[in-house]
Amino acid sequence: MDNQKIRTDFPMLVKHPKFIYFDNAATTQKPLSVIKAVTDYYENDNFNVHRSVYSAAEKTTQMFEECRNKVAKFINAKTNQSIVFTAGTTQGINQVANGYYKYNLSRGDEIVVSIAEHHSNLLPWQNLAKEKNAKLKYIDINNDGTLNLESAKKIITPKTKLIAITAVSNVLGNINNLNTLIKIAHQNNTDVLIDAAQAAPEIPINVQKIDVEWLAFSGHKMLAPTGIGILYGKKNLLETMKPTQLGGEMIEHVEKNNFSTKEIPYRLEAGTPNVEGVIGLSKAVDYLNNIGMMNIQNYCKSLGQYLYDQLSKITDVNVYGPKIRQTGIVAFNIKNIHPHDAATYLDFNNIAVRAGQHCAEPLTKKLGVNATLRASIYFYNNQAECDQLVNQVIEMRSFFNGN
Amino acid sequence: MDNQKIRTDFPMLVKHPKFIYFDNAATTQKPLSVIKAVTDYYENDNFNVHRSVYSAAEKTTQMFEECRNKVAKFINAKTNQSIVFTAGTTQGINQVANGYYKYNLSRGDEIVVSIAEHHSNLLPWQNLAKEKNAKLKYIDINNDGTLNLESAKKIITPKTKLIAITAVSNVLGNINNLNTLIKIAHQNNTDVLIDAAQAAPEIPINVQKIDVEWLAFSGHKMLAPTGIGILYGKKNLLETMKPTQLGGEMIEHVEKNNFSTKEIPYRLEAGTPNVEGVIGLSKAVDYLNNIGMMNIQNYCKSLGQYLYDQLSKITDVNVYGPKIRQTGIVAFNIKNIHPHDAATYLDFNNIAVRAGQHCAEPLTKKLGVNATLRASIYFYNNQAECDQLVNQVIEMRSFFNGN
Repeated sequence: MDNQKIRTDFPMLVKHPKFIYFDNAATTQKPLSVIKAVTDYYENDNFNVHRSVYSAAEKTTQMFEECRNKVAKFINAKTNQSIVFTAGTTQGINQVANGYYKYNLSRGDEIVVSIAEHHSNLLPWQNLAKEKNAKLKYIDINNDGTLNLESAKKIITPKTKLIAITAVSNVLGNINNLNTLIKIAHQNNTDVLIDAAQAAPEIPINVQKIDVEWLAFSGHKMLAPTGIGILYGKKNLLETMKPTQLGGEMIEHVEKNNFSTKEIPYRLEAGTPNVEGVIGLSKAVDYLNNIGMMNIQNYCKSLGQYLYDQLSKITDVNVYGPKIRQTGIVAFNIKNIHPHDAATYLDFNNIAVRAGQHCAEPLTKKLGVNATLRASIYFYNNQAECDQLVNQVIEMRSFFNGN
Repeated sequence: MDNQKIRTDFPMLVKHPKFIYFDNAATTQKPLSVIKAVTDYYENDNFNVHRSVYSAAEKTTQMFEECRNKVAKFINAKTNQSIVFTAGTTQGINQVANGYYKYNLSRGDEIVVSIAEHHSNLLPWQNLAKEKNAKLKYIDINNDGTLNLESAKKIITPKTKLIAITAVSNVLGNINNLNTLIKIAHQNNTDVLIDAAQAAPEIPINVQKIDVEWLAFSGHKMLAPTGIGILYGKKNLLETMKPTQLGGEMIEHVEKNNFSTKEIPYRLEAGTPNVEGVIGLSKAVDYLNNIGMMNIQNYCKSLGQYLYDQLSKITDVNVYGPKIRQTGIVAFNIKNIHPHDAATYLDFNNIAVRAGQHCAEPLTKKLGVNATLRASIYFYNNQAECDQLVNQVIEMRSFFNGN
């Protein structure tokens, strides 16, 4: 992977060479090919999809559906009917909660999540459990932040209807052992939903190999526009899922007191979709495939390890999560310096990191802190940028804490 | 209004000078200022909103919130807290159905719609009525397609909890008499929701003046990107509305078995929003304001009247809706020629019109046909384009029907 060459593909990095962007877990920058695809759409193919007889709109519909095929291939789905376009991971997970489990949970059933979930993969289940008089149970984490599989084995029983779990912690950066978890789940006849928002950008996904029931991710964390995401579901599940939104383009026939719907995935996609979002996502998938997801994973993991190791060496710096790194996400704190102050200090020095709870308040509490700093690396970042961050942290520590 | 000058603002029209786009009710073309705003975002301000300490992301958040203020002003909302960003009209209306009336309807209550609704403003109510054992009633239309206010007066009673009605028919192009309707509604203590998807692009909206409870529209029908829309709600209603999606950015605190939410509008906007969609919408509103909504309305109405009159003169052509036109939408049929064949013929001649039921099947049935052709004009269209359409219809008629 030629990092310097890759950087030239990203107008943001070219136009702002002194700016160091380490907030990729919040959203990623866009390569020129994605930006160009969106602009080309506006200038040449700006039509609504699925509705028109005229050829220009038919071409746009083809481009739109081509993305579905690419995404199906990207995560190795058996059929592109399993690929539902959403507005993002949050919508996808809420859709599964309100369109499927709402009708498939009984009093006393259990939903299992981990303590390390993003709020998007926690609140819909917390809410549904209350509504259905079901029980929400938490898989704990070990001291190093990894998933406690022993705790998982005890918690998951035939009462468990669903395990909703992230593939990659958006705070600690570790990859959960999904193979083992899905095996335990299926032994108990339990479905599994994977929040792949942080995984899709960094690690290869193979839904057939891991045999997962549901998987959701967002375009904007993997080089594509905001407002577009993917919900993958096994065909038989999607077929019995109720649409959570009703409107145009999902129906077959409408009468005054009845309507019939189209096949999946269309009946789950009411209204005009985010067309340029889909067209941008198409090019984002091309870009990622071109570099290769294994290369991206290895690069991010190795640079994440470098940053983790360098930060760990600094006095007064506490780095969270396992010592052996698996992704480019590194959360840390500096003794006596509030993460917001630290982020502001780094901002003055042109380095963008996130400070806060990263939409994972229960995990933050579990770590025994109020907030953390998070540097999240993507494949266009490099060692020189990590060194600058480390140097700034060292300087900041001296500045605030003295030697 | 200088139509020739305006056309130079639209790259699609400049790059494809022979292409005549009459499908503006499906989606509109984008001016350069909107395209440029989206590109600028990608190249300079591509950050997530509402979450970050660093200044670059704060700037993006400011741009994002500025759009909310602009939209509030655009429809004269009392407060920008009444402006909720959605993925489009469909999501907005579904949100009102599932987040508000689901909890405010009892058995025997009634919802009133018109027979001319787009499916997006029909199916959510049809569905909710069934779920809550409420009754869905239809306001009929007169022979010329206008709303039958006598029928409305009879149907609306104190039992009516909500009237959900379009401001502009997306097939017949007439503007409904909302003032009268809202007056009848409020006399019966009934709320009103307006589907403004076709109105927002063409006519000035003043939510305080008409005193409406809810109003929803889409960005992409008013020069902005797809995947972004607006839900307006009176503050007291939004405050008691339940979020239909849960996730990041809407919460105050999250515990293992509880969560508290932020204020409106944020608690109704879970997950990463369509940031570039919002930024594009901001520029779209600027562009429309710059031309002036009254000018746009007058232009579209007058060109719509011209097209209606010209088409009406052709033997074998049946034009639908009232003789006095109010917008740029004109639906018609040519005797013995299926609308799909007609649209294909026009497509061969570089004219894009829609053929079908336009997501309004009950209305199409009411008109006694299976489908119609629809030419929908926007302010960048002109008389020469209308003449070409009319000539092609004349030629087509001779080609298929003789004489």
